[in-house]
Amino acid sequence: MPDVSVDPSVTTGPIAGSTKIYRHGVPFRRVNLTNGEHLDLYDTSGPYTDDTAVIDLAAGLPARPGVVRDRGTQLQRARTGEVTAEMAFIAEREGVPAELVRHEVARGRAVIPANHNHPEAEPMIIGKAFAVKVNANIGNSAVSSSVAEEVDKMVWATRWGADTIMDLSTGRDIHLTREWILRNSPVPVGTVPLYQTLEKTNGDPAELTWELYRDTVIEQCEQGVDYMTVHAGVLMRHIPLTVDRVTGIVSRGGSIMAAWCLAHHQESFLYTNFEELCDILARYDVTFSLGDGLRPGSIADANDAAQFAELETLGELTKIAKAHGVQVMIEGPGHVPMHKIVENVRLEEELCEEAPFYTLGPLATDIAPAYDHITSAIGAAIIAQAGTAMLCYVTPKEHLGLPNRKDVKDGVIAYKIAAHAADLAKGHPHAQLRDDALSRARFEFRWHDQFALSLDPDTAREFHDETLPAAPAKTAHFCSMCGPKFCSMRITQDVRDAMADKSREFTESGGKVYLPVVTT
Amino acid sequence: MPDVSVDPSVTTGPIAGSTKIYRHGVPFRRVNLTNGEHLDLYDTSGPYTDDTAVIDLAAGLPARPGVVRDRGTQLQRARTGEVTAEMAFIAEREGVPAELVRHEVARGRAVIPANHNHPEAEPMIIGKAFAVKVNANIGNSAVSSSVAEEVDKMVWATRWGADTIMDLSTGRDIHLTREWILRNSPVPVGTVPLYQTLEKTNGDPAELTWELYRDTVIEQCEQGVDYMTVHAGVLMRHIPLTVDRVTGIVSRGGSIMAAWCLAHHQESFLYTNFEELCDILARYDVTFSLGDGLRPGSIADANDAAQFAELETLGELTKIAKAHGVQVMIEGPGHVPMHKIVENVRLEEELCEEAPFYTLGPLATDIAPAYDHITSAIGAAIIAQAGTAMLCYVTPKEHLGLPNRKDVKDGVIAYKIAAHAADLAKGHPHAQLRDDALSRARFEFRWHDQFALSLDPDTAREFHDETLPAAPAKTAHFCSMCGPKFCSMRITQDVRDAMADKSREFTESGGKVYLPVVTT
Repeated sequence: MPDVSVDPSVTTGPIAGSTKIYRHGVPFRRVNLTNGEHLDLYDTSGPYTDDTAVIDLAAGLPARPGVVRDRGTQLQRARTGEVTAEMAFIAEREGVPAELVRHEVARGRAVIPANHNHPEAEPMIIGKAFAVKVNANIGNSAVSSSVAEEVDKMVWATRWGADTIMDLSTGRDIHLTREWILRNSPVPVGTVPLYQTLEKTNGDPAELTWELYRDTVIEQCEQGVDYMTVHAGVLMRHIPLTVDRVTGIVSRGGSIMAAWCLAHHQESFLYTNFEELCDILARYDVTFSLGDGLRPGSIADANDAAQFAELETLGELTKIAKAHGVQVMIEGPGHVPMHKIVENVRLEEELCEEAPFYTLGPLATDIAPAYDHITSAIGAAIIAQAGTAMLCYVTPKEHLGLPNRKDVKDGVIAYKIAAHAADLAKGHPHAQLRDDALSRARFEFRWHDQFALSLDPDTAREFHDETLPAAPAKTAHFCSMCGPKFCSMRITQDVRDAMADKSREFTESGGKVYLPVVTT
Repeated sequence: MPDVSVDPSVTTGPIAGSTKIYRHGVPFRRVNLTNGEHLDLYDTSGPYTDDTAVIDLAAGLPARPGVVRDRGTQLQRARTGEVTAEMAFIAEREGVPAELVRHEVARGRAVIPANHNHPEAEPMIIGKAFAVKVNANIGNSAVSSSVAEEVDKMVWATRWGADTIMDLSTGRDIHLTREWILRNSPVPVGTVPLYQTLEKTNGDPAELTWELYRDTVIEQCEQGVDYMTVHAGVLMRHIPLTVDRVTGIVSRGGSIMAAWCLAHHQESFLYTNFEELCDILARYDVTFSLGDGLRPGSIADANDAAQFAELETLGELTKIAKAHGVQVMIEGPGHVPMHKIVENVRLEEELCEEAPFYTLGPLATDIAPAYDHITSAIGAAIIAQAGTAMLCYVTPKEHLGLPNRKDVKDGVIAYKIAAHAADLAKGHPHAQLRDDALSRARFEFRWHDQFALSLDPDTAREFHDETLPAAPAKTAHFCSMCGPKFCSMRITQDVRDAMADKSREFTESGGKVYLPVVTT
C-alpha cells in the first residue's frame, strides 16, 4: 500500500457463538448449538472472522487461486457451457447445483461481479434465483471521514453481512481510499466512476469529457473495481420530464449528466460511447450496474414518466452490453409507495431481459428522516419478494449526513432482515432452517443458542442482560417479559405433557373412548 | 390518586417545530413552516404537548364534556342513526364526513373504544376506512419496572404517536398502575383482564374461575378500561392442533386458557360465559378485542390449523357480541412470512364480518431478536395495506425483555412508519400531504421544515448536526453527504433554470425552432 500515513485498524475475531469453517474451500459461519447440533450460515465476512487468519492490512488479503484473465467474462464463459471456478465456489456457497449458477449467468439473469484484478474477493452471485444480496455504501465526502475510517467501515459492514460494498467517495484521496478498500475487501467492490471524474474537473459537470471519464474507468478497472454504476440512460428527451417533479433529479450521477447534456446540448457521452465502454469493461470482466439517474426522490415522483423512460433506455443498453459479453445489472428506486413497488420489478424484467435488479430501498414514505433504514427496509423486503436480486442499504443517516460505524451496522442489519424475509417469502430452500433453529432455541429457553443464531448476537445478548444479567438467567426457563410464574412457554410445555398423558390413556383404553384427564 | 408514594414525572411541551391547535375542539399538531405555510397533523399526544395546559398527574386529565352513560354503546347508537359527540370529534380529527364514521361503526367495521368511565381520553376510531392506528404495550412484570415508569412510558408513547395504550402489567400494583395510567391517558387504554385474575390465584391457571374473572372485568370496567383482550376462542378441540408446533402456544392468555381447559377438561369459562361477559361490557361500552390465543410464535407455525380454527371461533363470538351491542375487534398474528400475510386479512374479514383487525406485527422473520421492531414493521406495513385497522407495536426488546423508554419510542416510530406507509398505499386522502410537504422542504433545503415535518424532529436534527452543527448549515444549499460542490439538488436547480431559459428562447423565437442552449 503506497501511503504509510494511513493506519487503519479493523474488527477481527469470530461472531459470538460461531466459528469459521470451510467446506471445499468455501467459508461458512458455523453456529455451534448447546444441544449438539450446528447450522452453517452464508458468510460474507472474509478472513477477518477466522481466528487462525493473520490479518495484515498493509499487505492486503491473499489472492484466491485460479483467476483466469484471458478467457473473457463469466458471461462469455457460461455461454460456452463452462462452469468456472467462481461458479463452483458459488454453488457450494448457495447450496445449489453448479449448473443452475452457470445457466442463470449465461441467461443474463444473474451476474458474478469479479474483476480479474480483484482476486482478494470471494466469488458471489447476484440474481433472483439465489439468496437476496445486500450492498453497503461507504465512502468519504469533501467534509467528512478518512481513509482509515472507510476501511474500518468496509470490514465492519461485511462482518454483519454486506454482500458487496460500494465506495462512493467524493472528496480527497479517492484513489488511495479505493486501493485500501480493494486490497482488503472479501466482497466485490462497486463504484460510480463519474464521481472521481468530476473531481478532475473541479466539480464542474460542463467540463466533463468522454476521455476524462474513459481514463478514470480504466484506472478503476486496473485497480480491481468489480462493478460500476454508469448513468448512461439519462437522455436529452428525458430531462424535461423531470421539471415538474417535487424533487427533480436526486441521483448525483443523473443530475451531473443532465447538466452536461444541457450545457452541451448533446446526448450524454456515456450513451454515445457506450460500446467502447463495453469493450473496456469486458476486458476486466467488470459488471455494469446501469444507474437510474432519474430515480424518484420522493413518494410524489414514484413511477413517473421520467423514471420509466430512462428504464426503457436501460433496456436498450442491456442488450448492447450483453452483445459485448459484459455482465449487467439494473439499478432501481428510490422512494416508492408500497402499492407501486411491484410494477417496478415487472417493468424492469420486461424491458431489461430479467437482468438482475438492484434497488435502493425503496423508501415506502418520506416522513421519517433518521429512520430511513426502516422506511426503506419495508420497501426493500417487498421489492425483493417480487424478484429484486440485490438491495442497496439505506442507513439512519440517509438525507441527513454520512453514516458512521453504528449507522453502517444498523443499515446492514435492517437490510439483512429485508433480504431474509424475502428469501422466506420466495421459498428459498435453505432460508427457513435458521428461523426454525432459532425458534426452537427460543421455545426451549436455550438463550445462548438464540443469541448465536440471530443476525446480531451481541445486541441480542446485551438487551437480554439489561434486565437479567446473571449467568443463571441464560438457562432459566423464563425471561423478564413475563417473569417466572407467568411464562407461556412453560405453560405450553405443561399443556404438551398433559396432551401426552391423555394420548397415552387413550391408547391404553384401546383407542376408542375419550377419557377426561385432569392435570394442574 | 390513592397512593402518594407514587411520584411520576412526564415529558411535556410541544414537539419541536410544532404548536398545539384546536379545530372545533379537536387537537392537532400544527407544523409552522418557514415559507409561511403550515400543515396540521393528527395528534395523539393530549394536553402534554400544549404549552398552555396545566398538567397535574395526581389530579389526572380533565374529563371531556358530553359523555353519555345511559344510551348504550357507540355501536347501538350508530345503528339508530345517531352521530354521537365522539363520532363528530373523530370526523373532524380524521378529516372525513361524520356519516362515514357512523356508518362504519354501525356496520361493525370500525370501533370507538370509549368506556363511559374514561372521559379523559380523546375519541378515536379503529377501522379500515380510517387512518391505520398504532397501539403501544406498556406495563410492569414481576421482575421489572415501577408505576412511575409506566406513566412516563404512556405519555412518552402518545407523544410519538401511539393511538392506544395497552397496560399489560403482571406484577405488583396492577390496579394502582392502571389507575394512574387511565386518569392521565389522552388515548384509549386496553388490558388483558386475565393477567390480573391470574395474580389472584397466585399464578395457577387451574385455580381460575369465571367468578374471579368476572369480578376482575367489572373492576376494570369501573376503572375505565376502554378495550379488553379476551381469549375466548381457545377451545378444547383446538389444543391438540398446537402439539406439533415449533413454538406451541406463545400467547400468555392462550396458554393460560389451554392449561385451564386441560386441567378441568371443560370448555373455557370465557367461552361458556361469553354472553354474560357481553352484557357487562355493553354496560360500560367497553370494546372486545378478541384475542388470538393460538397465534403463531414462529415462521414455521404461521397460518396453521390451530390458528385458523381459533379464528373461526372468533367469528362466532363476533356475531354474539354484536348481537349484544358490544363493539368488537379481532386480534391477529404474530410471526408470518410475507407471502402468507394477506391470507390472514382475507380470512379474518370473511369469518368475522370485517370487524377491525388488530395485529401484532407480524414479524416477517424470526432471526433478528433486538431488531424485531424492524422485522415486524415490514409485516405490519403489508398487513395494514391489506386492511388491518390497528397495529400493535413491537419494540427492539421483544423476546428479550421489557421495553424501556428508548425502546417504547423506537417501537412507536417504527410502527408510525408502517401505518403511514399503509395509509399511502391505501390512498388515504390526506396521507401524502405530509410526504409532499417534507419532500418539498428537502428539495428546497429548508432543513428546519424537514425536521419539523418528520416523525421525530429531535433525532433528525441531531443526526444532521453530527457532521454540520453550525447554524448556517441549516440554510445551506448542501449537506454533508455530497458536500457543496457536488449536490444533486443544486445541480437539478441549475437544470431547471436551463430548461426555463430554453423554454423562454423557444417562446421568443415564435415557438417553432428548437435552439440549442448552453449553460454551465
